[in-house]
Parts: sequence; structure tokens; C-alpha cells
Amino acid sequence: MTKLTTVQLKAPYLILIGDLTDPTYAKTGFGIVDWRPDLVAGQLRFAGCGIDMGVPDMSVAEALKAGAKSLLIGVAPIGGVVPESWWASIEEAAGAGMDIICGLHFKLADFPAVAAAAKASGACLIDVRTPPADLPVGTGIKRSGKRVLMVGTDCAIGKKYSALALDNAMREAGMNSTFRATGQTGIMLAGEGIPIDAVVADFISGAAEMISPDNDEDHWDVIEGQGSLFHPGYSGVSLGLLHGSQPDAIVLCHDATRLSIAGWEHYLLPSVAECIELHIQTGQRVNPAIRCVGISVNTSALQEQDRRQYLDDLSEQTGVPCVDPMIDGCAAIVEYIQSTFSE
Amino acid sequence: MTKLTTVQLKAPYLILIGDLTDPTYAKTGFGIVDWRPDLVAGQLRFAGCGIDMGVPDMSVAEALKAGAKSLLIGVAPIGGVVPESWWASIEEAAGAGMDIICGLHFKLADFPAVAAAAKASGACLIDVRTPPADLPVGTGIKRSGKRVLMVGTDCAIGKKYSALALDNAMREAGMNSTFRATGQTGIMLAGEGIPIDAVVADFISGAAEMISPDNDEDHWDVIEGQGSLFHPGYSGVSLGLLHGSQPDAIVLCHDATRLSIAGWEHYLLPSVAECIELHIQTGQRVNPAIRCVGISVNTSALQEQDRRQYLDDLSEQTGVPCVDPMIDGCAAIVEYIQSTFSE
Repeated sequence: MTKLTTVQLKAPYLILIGDLTDPTYAKTGFGIVDWRPDLVAGQLRFAGCGIDMGVPDMSVAEALKAGAKSLLIGVAPIGGVVPESWWASIEEAAGAGMDIICGLHFKLADFPAVAAAAKASGACLIDVRTPPADLPVGTGIKRSGKRVLMVGTDCAIGKKYSALALDNAMREAGMNSTFRATGQTGIMLAGEGIPIDAVVADFISGAAEMISPDNDEDHWDVIEGQGSLFHPGYSGVSLGLLHGSQPDAIVLCHDATRLSIAGWEHYLLPSVAECIELHIQTGQRVNPAIRCVGISVNTSALQEQDRRQYLDDLSEQTGVPCVDPMIDGCAAIVEYIQSTFSE
Repeated sequence: MTKLTTVQLKAPYLILIGDLTDPTYAKTGFGIVDWRPDLVAGQLRFAGCGIDMGVPDMSVAEALKAGAKSLLIGVAPIGGVVPESWWASIEEAAGAGMDIICGLHFKLADFPAVAAAAKASGACLIDVRTPPADLPVGTGIKRSGKRVLMVGTDCAIGKKYSALALDNAMREAGMNSTFRATGQTGIMLAGEGIPIDAVVADFISGAAEMISPDNDEDHWDVIEGQGSLFHPGYSGVSLGLLHGSQPDAIVLCHDATRLSIAGWEHYLLPSVAECIELHIQTGQRVNPAIRCVGISVNTSALQEQDRRQYLDDLSEQTGVPCVDPMIDGCAAIVEYIQSTFSE
């Protein structure tokens, strides 16, 4: 039987950018360099590349010497296909024992030369969209340590970004915290995690339980959220993640000017108040003490004065700190957590 | 691209019972004979069989002559394994062009002789635990026709049975209704459906939308429920199914004497009132007119007088008819639906 585990990545990474010319398609690479520079050994670029992530250029051989453990495909080209000319480098890295990490829709193992090279060297081919085998059903048994889950009024509304910013702010404030990933980009940033929306439905909360296991009593898991309880396509993922995470706290992620569910425009966004209320109501099933500790709002479409007013009004309505993490940071939410949970 | 579809079975079935001696393990077969005798051509029994489902005995050849389209494995033996001696008959049926239908945990295609026989004849090997490929994400777009979804305070609390009984009662009352299956036994009874808990998390509500497609305005889909919004392991399945089904009505399934979630005894059963409330609250997201139209209670552990009192009290509290479908039938719920939806 396979040992129960999350998807596990080995850092440092050599990030493959190839000969890409448009930075739009290198978001994955830039995200890792921005958020987790400590995981990055260097970048692998080919002649004609128009992008520079500002980290050392390395060949596969140089990266190996520098201690790189994995080659990470840091791009999402149009069509989701890696150009033919890149595969020689991927095969070289796999043959030299580096794990290959990929978040695109194809499977690495479907490329026979890469599969053979990895098999010969013992390297792993890791498709971060593929959940680990043999996930358990959720038990609902209380775990030690504390958890804060990002939730949202919609998908793609800043849950990953908010979790990363909050985790950073907690550690800056001297707290003991860990970012916990539930999506593919998050997994590359965390070095581990489970792509929760790719799990078989029966195992959503079981996978969520594995993502934030027992921990020290003063430790906080800062868990990346997925979907929304109000999303007509993805609500099941969100409820399973909420129940499996059994959070002590939630941070609601919202967009100040979004009116309807992105891509599902026939559904209006829920109000912040009803969204908090439903999360508290359903989250109490697994953690009776659950409370909302802050609201993380994308206010980029507002002028500064309107922005300030919007956040102040929302904070007065809800009684919790409201911030735009890109502009204000998450210190106000951290302070609120510290005062609330020291009681 | 695969055409979007549910799992589709071809009746009539020849039900394989083999040489089983304990009827406990032939629940699947008995369920089909009880609920859908119209789908059954006969039973295939071997020497030493201790079970009789009361339908004609047939060899594979006789079943073919009688028009049987599928051989259905009607048992769930200990260990989930079909005895070695049965495979010759399965291979014979597959070779003669009969589909093979199986709900056990192995995959039929992993048996090379059966796979080869099916390939040669064009027969399908149908593992009803395996969802169809290329399921869509839920759209939340309103569909025509009416839907009633069974929901529950727990798993294994009578949702399939209640749906079958309600569908029968609706048709007896002259209504236009169809039982819609979301689990493997239900799929064998309905001849089609999707095992919703085996679907990848992102596609739960999309699968639910396919299970109850657009229909005539006076048509009712009676949808088998799964799990419970209050279940720490399976709540994600339940919310995705609720949102994808966009029910006009729910029937809450409950057990009069069950105190805690079966197998999760550290979780008390929710009250009937809070369970109805949460379903209405979340179901309104996709169907603002959703309402509870009845409660289906397993009262088998109560004495007749207590049973009557229990149902009367619950009906007074909730304002909807409360029945034990095994004892009272579902006529009271059908009447309530007819009067409520004729307004």
C-alpha cells in the first residue's frame, strides 16, 4: 500500500523558462521567485529568450553542481504544450537524477524518453495536478495546532495571494506559521500540498485533513482556499475543504468592484455578510469556535479615497480588519488574530 | 472528444448469483428484482446455490434467446472478489455480445480473457463505480422541468429507498416522474446515472446537472441523494449534488433513533430543523423557490404507538408530511407536492 502523503517537491529548483518571449506565460516562475526566492537555484534560458527573472542563469550541469534537486517547468505556454526543442534539457535533467516538476495538463510519464531517463536515474516525474494515491476519507477528528483558511465570495479572488501575504506577516510578527497549498501553483511555492479540486469527491475533506496535520499548539497553518460555497460549479470543493481544514479562523477574500461570479455572470456575488455567516454556520460543524478574523479585498479598481472609505465601511459593518494585502499588507489581520486568540 | 453522457446500461439483465449461499451478499440482485422487475430477464445460478430470487433460471444461451442485453453481477461477495469458477460464464456472455455490468471494486477490463471476448463481440464492460469521461463543470443555468432531491441527516439513512418509493408513488398518482441515480446500486436500478462520489471534485455539480437534464415542465426528476451537508467526510459531495440538482423540493431522510453519524460517532446527528434550514439556505443559491416537501423517517426501531407519535410531532414542528416509506408509503408527500406546486 502506498504511504499516505501529500505531493512532495524537492528544492532548490532550476526553473525552465526556455526561449519564451512574453512574461505573461511565465507567471509560475515569477511567482516562485517573488514569494519563495529561497527555493530557487537559478533559471534555465535558451537563445532568444525575452524574459529575465533576475536569478542566476544555469545549465542543467551547473544547476546540479549548485545543488538543484528539481527542474521545474516555470511556464504555461499557449496551448499548454512544451516546445519540442525544450525536451532535450528536460531529459538531460531527468537522466542526471533531478526530479521534473510540471503543472501543465499533459503527463510527464507520457513522454517515453523522459520516462526512461527518470527511471534509469531514480528521478521522480511530478505532475502537480495529480493528487497522491490512496487518500483517506475525512475523519473530522480534532487536530492539534491552529488553522486559518482563506475563503472567498468567488474563485480567482486572491485566496492564494492572501494566504501567502498573511503567512509572511505572521512570521514577521514572530508567530509560528506555515503556508499550506491546495492548488498547483501553491504546491510549487510550498514545496508540498494536494491539488484539492483534482481529488475524487469522496476524499475532499480527507485530503484537506492531510494538508494541515497535527502540529504544535501555537502553530498556525495558513491554508490556501479554493472556489466558494456560493459558486455553482465548485461549491463542493469549498465545503469539503472547509470541513477537512476545521479552521479556527477564516479570512474572507473579496473584490471591491466585482459584481458577479467570474465566468458565471448569471450569478451575482454574495454579500460579504452572508458569505461570512454561511462559513461560520457550516464551519461550526467541525470547529465550534470558528470565527472570521479579517477580510482581504482587492481594491485595485478604486481610487485611494474610495478605497479607504470602502475598507473602513466594511470594517465597521463586520467588526474585523479589512485590508488590501497588496497595498496595506496583512499586519492588521495578524494583530487581530493575536489579540483574539490570546484571550 | 467523448460525447458527454451518463453511465448507460442495457436491459433486460441476466443477474449472476452463481453458487452463493448467503442472501446477505446478493442485496444488489434482490434490489433489482424488488424495485425493477421489468429490467430482469432471469437469474444465472450454479450447482450449490442457496439463493432464489424468484425469477426464471437461465443459462447465458437461454438469456440471449430471451433477449437479455447484459449480464449483471448481482452479488457483493466477501472481499469483493468474484470466485474463479464464475469467470467462464462472464467470458461466455461477453463473447456472445452481452454487456457485463459490475459494481465491485476491481475493473472488468483487468481480466484479459473477458476483455478480449468483449472486444471481439463489441460488448461493453461497464464498471458502474467508474464515472464517464469528460464531465463538465457545473454551469448553474436553470433547467426546465421539476426536481426533488433526497437529502439526509447522515449517510446510509434511506435516501435511495425514499427516492424509489417516492418515484413509484408519484407515478401511481398519475404524475410524470423519473428516478435519477447517483450511486452504483441506484444506477443498476435506473439503467443509467453517475456515481457522484467517484467524480473528480471539480465536476460534482457538473455531473449532477447531467443526471437531471432539461425536461417537460410537468416532469419530476426524483434524485437519489448522497452523504449529508453535516457529514465530516462527505459534505462536499452533498453540496455539489445540491447545487447541480437545483431542486425545487427536498425530502429530508432521517432515522428516528440514530443519535450520531454512523461510523463517525464523535459527531452527533444534526436536528431535523437545522438540516432543513441549511439545505434551504444553500439550495436557494441555485433555486430561490426551493422548499422542503416531506420527511422520510426510518422508524423501524420504534413501537407502533411511539412511531405514530414521533411522526405526528415532527410533522407539527416542520409543517410538512412525515412518513416511514416502508410502512406508510409516500402518498402523503405526493399529495403535498401536488397541492404545493399547483398553486
